[in-house]
Amino acid sequence: MAKAIKNIDQKSIWDDARQMLAKAEKDGVETAWDRLEQQSPHCQFGESGVCCRICTMGPCRVSKKAPRGVCGADADVIVARNFGRFVAGGSAGHSDHGRDCIEALYDVAHGKTKDYTIKDEDKLRRIAAELGIAEQGRETLEVAKDLAEEFYANYGSRRDEVSFLCRVPQKRKDIWHNLGMTPRGVDREIAEMMHRTHMGCDNDAVNTMVHSARTCLADAWAGSMIATEISDILFGTPSPRMSQANLGVIKEDQVNILVHGHNPIVSEKIVEAVNDPELIALAKQKGASGINVAGLCCTGNELMMRQGIPMAGNHLMTELAIVTGAVELIVVDYQCIMPSLVTVGNCYHTKMVTTADKAKFTGAEHVKFEMTNGMAQARKVVQMAIARFALRDKKRVQIPKGPVPMMTGFSNEALLAALGGTLTPLIEAIKAGKVRGAVAIVGCNNPKYQQDYCNVNLARELIKRDILVLVTGCVTTAAGKANLLMPESISQAGPGLQEICGSLGIPPVLHMGSCVDNARIIQLAAMLANELGVDISDLPLAGSSPEWYSEKAAAIGTYCVASGIYTHLGHPPNITGSELVTNLALKGLDELVGACFLIEPDPFKAAEHIDQRIKAKRLGLGLPA
Amino acid sequence: MAKAIKNIDQKSIWDDARQMLAKAEKDGVETAWDRLEQQSPHCQFGESGVCCRICTMGPCRVSKKAPRGVCGADADVIVARNFGRFVAGGSAGHSDHGRDCIEALYDVAHGKTKDYTIKDEDKLRRIAAELGIAEQGRETLEVAKDLAEEFYANYGSRRDEVSFLCRVPQKRKDIWHNLGMTPRGVDREIAEMMHRTHMGCDNDAVNTMVHSARTCLADAWAGSMIATEISDILFGTPSPRMSQANLGVIKEDQVNILVHGHNPIVSEKIVEAVNDPELIALAKQKGASGINVAGLCCTGNELMMRQGIPMAGNHLMTELAIVTGAVELIVVDYQCIMPSLVTVGNCYHTKMVTTADKAKFTGAEHVKFEMTNGMAQARKVVQMAIARFALRDKKRVQIPKGPVPMMTGFSNEALLAALGGTLTPLIEAIKAGKVRGAVAIVGCNNPKYQQDYCNVNLARELIKRDILVLVTGCVTTAAGKANLLMPESISQAGPGLQEICGSLGIPPVLHMGSCVDNARIIQLAAMLANELGVDISDLPLAGSSPEWYSEKAAAIGTYCVASGIYTHLGHPPNITGSELVTNLALKGLDELVGACFLIEPDPFKAAEHIDQRIKAKRLGLGLPA
Repeated sequence: MAKAIKNIDQKSIWDDARQMLAKAEKDGVETAWDRLEQQSPHCQFGESGVCCRICTMGPCRVSKKAPRGVCGADADVIVARNFGRFVAGGSAGHSDHGRDCIEALYDVAHGKTKDYTIKDEDKLRRIAAELGIAEQGRETLEVAKDLAEEFYANYGSRRDEVSFLCRVPQKRKDIWHNLGMTPRGVDREIAEMMHRTHMGCDNDAVNTMVHSARTCLADAWAGSMIATEISDILFGTPSPRMSQANLGVIKEDQVNILVHGHNPIVSEKIVEAVNDPELIALAKQKGASGINVAGLCCTGNELMMRQGIPMAGNHLMTELAIVTGAVELIVVDYQCIMPSLVTVGNCYHTKMVTTADKAKFTGAEHVKFEMTNGMAQARKVVQMAIARFALRDKKRVQIPKGPVPMMTGFSNEALLAALGGTLTPLIEAIKAGKVRGAVAIVGCNNPKYQQDYCNVNLARELIKRDILVLVTGCVTTAAGKANLLMPESISQAGPGLQEICGSLGIPPVLHMGSCVDNARIIQLAAMLANELGVDISDLPLAGSSPEWYSEKAAAIGTYCVASGIYTHLGHPPNITGSELVTNLALKGLDELVGACFLIEPDPFKAAEHIDQRIKAKRLGLGLPA
Repeated sequence: MAKAIKNIDQKSIWDDARQMLAKAEKDGVETAWDRLEQQSPHCQFGESGVCCRICTMGPCRVSKKAPRGVCGADADVIVARNFGRFVAGGSAGHSDHGRDCIEALYDVAHGKTKDYTIKDEDKLRRIAAELGIAEQGRETLEVAKDLAEEFYANYGSRRDEVSFLCRVPQKRKDIWHNLGMTPRGVDREIAEMMHRTHMGCDNDAVNTMVHSARTCLADAWAGSMIATEISDILFGTPSPRMSQANLGVIKEDQVNILVHGHNPIVSEKIVEAVNDPELIALAKQKGASGINVAGLCCTGNELMMRQGIPMAGNHLMTELAIVTGAVELIVVDYQCIMPSLVTVGNCYHTKMVTTADKAKFTGAEHVKFEMTNGMAQARKVVQMAIARFALRDKKRVQIPKGPVPMMTGFSNEALLAALGGTLTPLIEAIKAGKVRGAVAIVGCNNPKYQQDYCNVNLARELIKRDILVLVTGCVTTAAGKANLLMPESISQAGPGLQEICGSLGIPPVLHMGSCVDNARIIQLAAMLANELGVDISDLPLAGSSPEWYSEKAAAIGTYCVASGIYTHLGHPPNITGSELVTNLALKGLDELVGACFLIEPDPFKAAEHIDQRIKAKRLGLGLPA
């Protein structure tokens, strides 16, 4: 894995990024790549996970010379504890987002807000029925009230298992039960993870790793899944539509607002406000031809999936989007928002607005969004952006050209609709080897890699091999910019995939949403397993996060593996200081949960390994390789 | 603060410790002091809190040369995030213990166990009434069911505030409300703390610190308080009784079992089993004169407070207790149990038994305790200990002599009873300046200090100044061994304290329990404030943890300060890398919450500072200094 890349062309595979990196250099703007250079080389203790700051007898750093911390913890225990807290952070991110969605559903159900409504009543009723809530003949909001109660209970201490375990194949549930890995409640598993990793509590690395997996499973099958399902209920279940991506979506003659973060509760209102004729008139009065909103990161994915709002860029494009000099305002909710955006914004005229009390940024303006004031606050934010337009320095504006068109909106509902209402055509295609398997490529950018090189090349390699690719999160933009998200992209795929996707009119790489929407993918995996009467681990599937950076990505990887899906990461989490934990991740987990991690920075080699795994799984099912 | 002390006499002020340190050296046993030497000097980045491992764009270490992490986070943000997670770990420890107590109460209430019962029905009913649960004319178990429900809800996402905020003065509640610091739910605050500290979420150090305080307040006024109250209900509310402390409580001619950890659910059953005539007969048959059980750490405090079980030692005595060579078995639940105990045990014949699935130790035997099998498992453990007696190598046994007598059992109920049923005598004594104030000295040992030097000397200095001292946790053993926990110890106190404690027949230093029992102390503070119609911050009180080491101690310190109590720590948490956070802790918090931290390794200087603060508070109340 390359670190501290200095050459602009080697920093990103994209022309829009390269242009802005050159402009940033010229404008004296510091970027993540510059700071990575300052931070290199990284501390080897930290990188290998053997540094412990869990009590003040330390901090300790174990090594051959000093193999135990002051308390007596060895590398295995220290690495496992650090990993446990790392994925607890990731699970907490997704799940606290899910909690915000529950509160939104609750407020809508109880008539506490007029700013939000139920957009997909069918989905509300379908999920209620799935979870055993009576819905026939009842008022929509009454059903919504009960569903909110059911979801709240998933965050408590009273359940033996979270609700959506009803979606999981029995074989998988048995594995979890036998290992003590069944997720009981979202917050409970997170809090217990923190308790276990206190000094002098859990001091058996395998035991700690099992609870790490349990915590991530609570994220998968409760926190994230609840976030996704409620977002669909409140904002509509995505269906295929066209959009576009790259910095070219920023418009020179308009007021540009970027939305960044994860939860659609804020950004959906911004989109509404942007379309308000009064505000458009105000923008025109100020000399703009209109108001343009574009997405970044997962908030971008949420808006793109449901509204077709264009995507300015993924993780490493967030600073560079501001460098265009044409962004009036960036409004954020939470997660993955580089604190440097305030500083970069200050180099131009870009105002940063925060909206969540749990995610304030020093130097940004805080406009608190609540369920009762969402629309009013959104209008206020848009007005702030319009006021900012006059401050734009036109001489410093440079916007890369040519946004790339892409198809988005592949919720499971949309996928099923494309398949004619059942999974049968997909299963038949898999059996026939036309679709040899499916791989979800998800996650982030990380300046340690040439931006999107691995994300894009892995996708390309897999579709060539007739492996369907599903993307979420920041890989979406990568795949979109690489022209992989259009129906015409089947020309880059193998003959089987060409035939199947061609006949359905869908791309060989399907955009399934934001990072919490990886819940859609594991649900799809469970549906396939249930349909075939096998476990998820028997299916020719894999997950991959080639350029990941975040704790959430590590949580996703862990819940994928714990759910039985072989998962590739471009680089390991900070665990290599423990042979035991590393071996568990790369091999031992295969015996415990039927799947393990693959660490491989080279996307071509990774594709080969994944292909081998898919072959083995196909053979295991009695199918041609 | 001295580090890596090499001279045995400088390692501890105690003779029993020094004897065992010499024996450990002779026996080739490695101790925490040896490992501290190996780990010294500590990493300066870690110690000052400016090392960030929250994502894999890093790890980053900020410095003058590289003032921001790859994401752009500066020292303030990094330090605040690390501190937030640190106290989240501590709060989770106490609170998950509290959850286990709720589950126990629930099982008792619902008749799911015969091994546990309600021992203090009065307290059950009193607390139920306090929380608005109907209890008059109802069956005890019915009331218990409702109380368990009420407590469970304190861990959920549905409350605006935790139940026991009914105990908090309105002025304090207003401060919390205005700062967004009101604790809503235990698990929720912990999970939100983890979410906020994910990359790109909360990037305003003060905002993060406010939520850190909120998380700790949830520990104080819910997690810990629930743990304490339920333990009293199930095992009896402590009342004054005699006990003794130091390694001399280990008996040469008996089977010795040490109980270690925090939750009385396991240890209470061990005590019962040890008194089983059948098992005593079995021990005698194996050549022992009986079975002896002694406590360590907070499990020791719990048993001492309620049963008068003697205390073998505090944190740094746990390894040394095994070095006597006379310990057959050590049975643990969770927290503060050095993983090295397994290794030390292996140097002798000492077996280590774990009991909680969330706290396994590699190399220990796991005997899982559940509510339905507690008694049977306790008998099994005692049998294992008896079997171990034959393996004891008598030539390697050396037990320090002369356990020190001490008085224990000062719950608030006991204190009120000693005062004749009301706080009035205490308030009058405070007004008259006979009791100038009260200071809780709590927490741990840390091998960076001469063991108990600060704990003991601070207590001595304070009582000399007519300041009543309350102790919990590992400071208990220190105070006990220093002869401060006997009614006769008033000879060491100032004249006012001599008079008041003398007339009540109580020591000038009162043992109030384990670390979760610091909830008793904040409750007492709230009772005093309510009685006087003032805020807690107006009272002549302070907290202190001179030799702390654990995340729980940091959480306790933080909730003390957030509750309005000036709090002394012997050394800072890992925050000194941020001037902003350090200033907030040492000064800024005073403006926000009416209390702040004092950092002072010298107990004499600390006593002087505390005295000054108490003087100021007395003057503020219009009392003589």
